[in-house]
Amino acid sequence: DDRLVHDGEFIVDGKIFGLPEARVYTEDYSGPPVVGGYLTAVPNLAELDYEGNRTHEVRMDVIAQQIEVAPGKFYNAWTFGGSVPGPTLHVREGDRVVFTMKNRSDEPVVITEPVAGGSPFFAQVQANPIQNNQPAVSPMPHSMDFHSGTVAANDKWQTIPPGATIQFNWVANYPGVYMYHCGTPSVLMHTAQGQYGAVVVSPKEGFPTEADREYVLVQSEFYLTEDEYSGGYRYDHAAAMARDPSQVTFNGHVNALHDAPLRANAGERVRLYVLNAGPSGTSSFHVIGAIFDRVWYEGNVENEWRGMQTVLLGASNGAVMDFIVPEQGSYKIVDHEFADAERGAAGTLVAGPR
Amino acid sequence: DDRLVHDGEFIVDGKIFGLPEARVYTEDYSGPPVVGGYLTAVPNLAELDYEGNRTHEVRMDVIAQQIEVAPGKFYNAWTFGGSVPGPTLHVREGDRVVFTMKNRSDEPVVITEPVAGGSPFFAQVQANPIQNNQPAVSPMPHSMDFHSGTVAANDKWQTIPPGATIQFNWVANYPGVYMYHCGTPSVLMHTAQGQYGAVVVSPKEGFPTEADREYVLVQSEFYLTEDEYSGGYRYDHAAAMARDPSQVTFNGHVNALHDAPLRANAGERVRLYVLNAGPSGTSSFHVIGAIFDRVWYEGNVENEWRGMQTVLLGASNGAVMDFIVPEQGSYKIVDHEFADAERGAAGTLVAGPR
Amino acid sequence: DDRLVHDGEFIVDGKIFGLPEARVYTEDYSGPPVVGGYLTAVPNLAELDYEGNRTHEVRMDVIAQQIEVAPGKFYNAWTFGGSVPGPTLHVREGDRVVFTMKNRSDEPVVITEPVAGGSPFFAQVQANPIQNNQPAVSPMPHSMDFHSGTVAANDKWQTIPPGATIQFNWVANYPGVYMYHCGTPSVLMHTAQGQYGAVVVSPKEGFPTEADREYVLVQSEFYLTEDEYSGGYRYDHAAAMARDPSQVTFNGHVNALHDAPLRANAGERVRLYVLNAGPSGTSSFHVIGAIFDRVWYEGNVENEWRGMQTVLLGASNGAVMDFIVPEQGSYKIVDHEFADAERGAAGTLVAGPR
Ligand SMILES: [Cu+2]
Ligand SMILES: [Cu+2]
Ligand SMILES: [Cu+2]
Ligand SMILES: [Cu+2]
Ligand SMILES: [Cu+2]
Ligand SMILES: [Cu+2]
Ligand code: NA
Ligand code: NA
Ligand code: NA
Ligand code: NA
Ligand code: NA
Ligand code: NA
Ligand SMILES: [Zn+2]
Ligand SMILES: [Zn+2]
Ligand SMILES: [Zn+2]
Ligand SMILES: [Zn+2]
Ligand SMILES: [Zn+2]
Ligand SMILES: [Zn+2]
Ligand SMILES: [Zn+2]
Ligand SMILES: [Zn+2]
Ligand SMILES: [Zn+2]
Repeated sequence: DDRLVHDGEFIVDGKIFGLPEARVYTEDYSGPPVVGGYLTAVPNLAELDYEGNRTHEVRMDVIAQQIEVAPGKFYNAWTFGGSVPGPTLHVREGDRVVFTMKNRSDEPVVITEPVAGGSPFFAQVQANPIQNNQPAVSPMPHSMDFHSGTVAANDKWQTIPPGATIQFNWVANYPGVYMYHCGTPSVLMHTAQGQYGAVVVSPKEGFPTEADREYVLVQSEFYLTEDEYSGGYRYDHAAAMARDPSQVTFNGHVNALHDAPLRANAGERVRLYVLNAGPSGTSSFHVIGAIFDRVWYEGNVENEWRGMQTVLLGASNGAVMDFIVPEQGSYKIVDHEFADAERGAAGTLVAGPR
Repeated sequence: DDRLVHDGEFIVDGKIFGLPEARVYTEDYSGPPVVGGYLTAVPNLAELDYEGNRTHEVRMDVIAQQIEVAPGKFYNAWTFGGSVPGPTLHVREGDRVVFTMKNRSDEPVVITEPVAGGSPFFAQVQANPIQNNQPAVSPMPHSMDFHSGTVAANDKWQTIPPGATIQFNWVANYPGVYMYHCGTPSVLMHTAQGQYGAVVVSPKEGFPTEADREYVLVQSEFYLTEDEYSGGYRYDHAAAMARDPSQVTFNGHVNALHDAPLRANAGERVRLYVLNAGPSGTSSFHVIGAIFDRVWYEGNVENEWRGMQTVLLGASNGAVMDFIVPEQGSYKIVDHEFADAERGAAGTLVAGPR
Repeated sequence: DDRLVHDGEFIVDGKIFGLPEARVYTEDYSGPPVVGGYLTAVPNLAELDYEGNRTHEVRMDVIAQQIEVAPGKFYNAWTFGGSVPGPTLHVREGDRVVFTMKNRSDEPVVITEPVAGGSPFFAQVQANPIQNNQPAVSPMPHSMDFHSGTVAANDKWQTIPPGATIQFNWVANYPGVYMYHCGTPSVLMHTAQGQYGAVVVSPKEGFPTEADREYVLVQSEFYLTEDEYSGGYRYDHAAAMARDPSQVTFNGHVNALHDAPLRANAGERVRLYVLNAGPSGTSSFHVIGAIFDRVWYEGNVENEWRGMQTVLLGASNGAVMDFIVPEQGSYKIVDHEFADAERGAAGTLVAGPR
């Protein structure tokens, strides 16, 4: 039983703290950069097909990857697992995660070919290859900071050089919709380059309503400028400092939720797990034509709001939002800060008949 | 009984969905552009002088209108009903609205002369003509999106050309302070041009406190630049994209709540219905000298906060805020984001003796 | 018993309103600019070593002061008591404050030498002299606006010229973490120049958890540009209007919480009293490696959230935030709007072993 406290760990209010030190080492690994059954590509969320708590062995390697964030606009992203946002991890409150990450930023890694083992993530990326992922190389120190974990940041979130691997534990002490990201300075740069994603920690006792559909949406800003050398784009630090994004997207591409809209039927309850990854902006999250029946702020079932037209999320706030699909038709999803919607923070839900 | 479900409608958790399709047609109408007894000019709110639920027949036509947002600063606004913000609609949770809108953007409509029929809106605009409304013509496709409605956005919120009329139903399924606005792309442009206003849906069972005074405040940004042709101003899309407003106002003019301050007496409970219409900015809403005794976030009585100095509203968030007037004197109302207050997001409440 | 209503005062819902008029006068005072036992320098919070309610006699004089906000970056700040942010006042819900303020902006006042009488504030500034305070002169009208007070703003918050003194009462009707600031136009300028600080009003019945450590953090933006005359820096109004800060700090210096980190031990419950003073920006407040076990929005014990990774604060919002220190190590504290963290909105908590 992983809920047992290991040597040196301690419990406060039912939460486990004092986890073992991170281990940094080198390994001879060239397998899939994403390993774990509960890791999916946005907007998918893995089903928790087990009862109670368990330990998850999860790998997300750092790799550079050329991706598109708008038609024809590609840049060399720094990523977890090869997509921006990275894979979504789903666990249950109380679960333990044994996390492994190799910094493979110096190695061209292909994520668009079938992998044995690995994770549902790959097949889902391949089914919806909107970022047109291509291997790239960009050697750089990196790190991993899970907002879902409660640990000494200087230990678990430490930076490792290209070629190194880090392994550490974290325990999902609090339910929520969390951000993970690289915490290596300049953090503004590392996150704007693409190193972030979502962890969903479902509450032990579940939510008071039952959803018919569940989707994950990660909002984020890109700060890109033309790159005369590559013919593509590159990160623009001055624009990032000025909060002047070139694109704001849901799920990493201005058309991600237009080319592959979310699906539901009239009368169904749709549950959105929304993370605003920033790196700097807020999101005034809204579904045109719908009202959120329930909102759990930060994804914690104890923080419930009712009847919300719009949910304001700070940089690295999450929320779970339920709405009833009113009728057959199509519904736009937007950041109602329209200067951001205009930059791409928009998607579509298509509803079939009841 | 309008709560009866019409053919094809269905109920989920006591809410009515699956409303009849919108009807788009042409009509020979040149009557008042605002029709309905429960439509008022800001900061007024109509009294709900009926018990239970009813059906409201409401008209707000789209008209172009030259208005001022600061002394001498006029531009050709796109409006609902001729003012910016447009009329405030007040209904009760569970009410049904049969809404009609003619796109009369190609027709100079006068709103400053007495109208027979129509709505209390006109007399209230004429009593406080701070925007100095003048008829204008600016033919353009437009649409209407009520955040208070739960409907298929592609149907009810569809765009209609100049000369066309649209009619549709919506049901006030959730109490709240809601935004309505034009949803025609560029939505940033159409809203910044002036096409927005508030709907107040009062909760069925009312609020737990009783207010002595009630006022509606709509905050919004304007993005205007000098127009060499007209000698006035015009919408500046680059400024809107850069989130660099020329004015931020309460109720559509930098002096709206200074020239005609809100009124109350010491010891009274004042209730504000506040909408932040954006189109892009947040509001850190504050009354200088007061603390909000109760705040209902989004205007939903189930989302109660106590003892708030400042209420942060995202773009298209609303709230109901109660405060006790501490003593005789005057109280400024501000967006405490002082760069916005400096641009005009300020007003005054004048309190008489107890 | 100060809870007795004085002549002319009245009670609504247990709160006291209708306080006596402010008194403006001249006095021959050149004593310590900060007087009161419950006034401290950030991040300290005074202990409330009394039961029930009392009356506090509090002085915070306005003085100009040359301070540094980053290594070598000094400017002539306008301050309450000589530091930016000014002293933190701690009282209990129901307490009365008799506040006195002399506008000594025309007088060079030294705050870095031992003072007889005065307040714990001085010794704390001298123990951590990171702003390198130097007396300065900058004669200017000023005022004081306590968000914790419920009074006629035109009376108590009135502007007084250099040399004048104002005295008024306010009663801590609502618990919370409040901003105080100068309210003299341009308020954007007066606050950006340094005139703000925090008041903590602890709830009568306390919080449901018991904290092992308590710290006060005030976030604020500076808008400075090089000043060719002084060789230092000066306030840049255009940058303030454009929301383009030169620094964003916790407790008034980019290194305030690095050079003198917050301290705690693994397993302890740390309570942060956080105020976002703006003057314009929001804060997405986050502790790297921790999750907030409890958050009381605006510092009011009735507004409780659980399990928050990040707390979004508008301009002049406050909050009380508890977290358990997970293990020995170090934890960065940031505004997770990384463009602001990059400008200095970062600090450190160092945790010892359990
Ligand atoms: Cu990195
Ligand atoms: Cu909208
Ligand atoms: Cu329009
Ligand atoms: Cu204020
Ligand atoms: Cu001042
Ligand atoms: Cu983070
Ligand atoms: Na945004
Ligand atoms: Na909507
Ligand atoms: Na604003
Ligand atoms: Na106030
Ligand atoms: Na900020
Ligand atoms: Na954290
Ligand atoms: Zn697993
Ligand atoms: Zn981080
Ligand atoms: Zn936004
Ligand atoms: Zn009616
Ligand atoms: Zn819309
Ligand atoms: Zn604002
Ligand atoms: Zn005292
Ligand atoms: Zn003020
Ligand atoms: Zn910020």
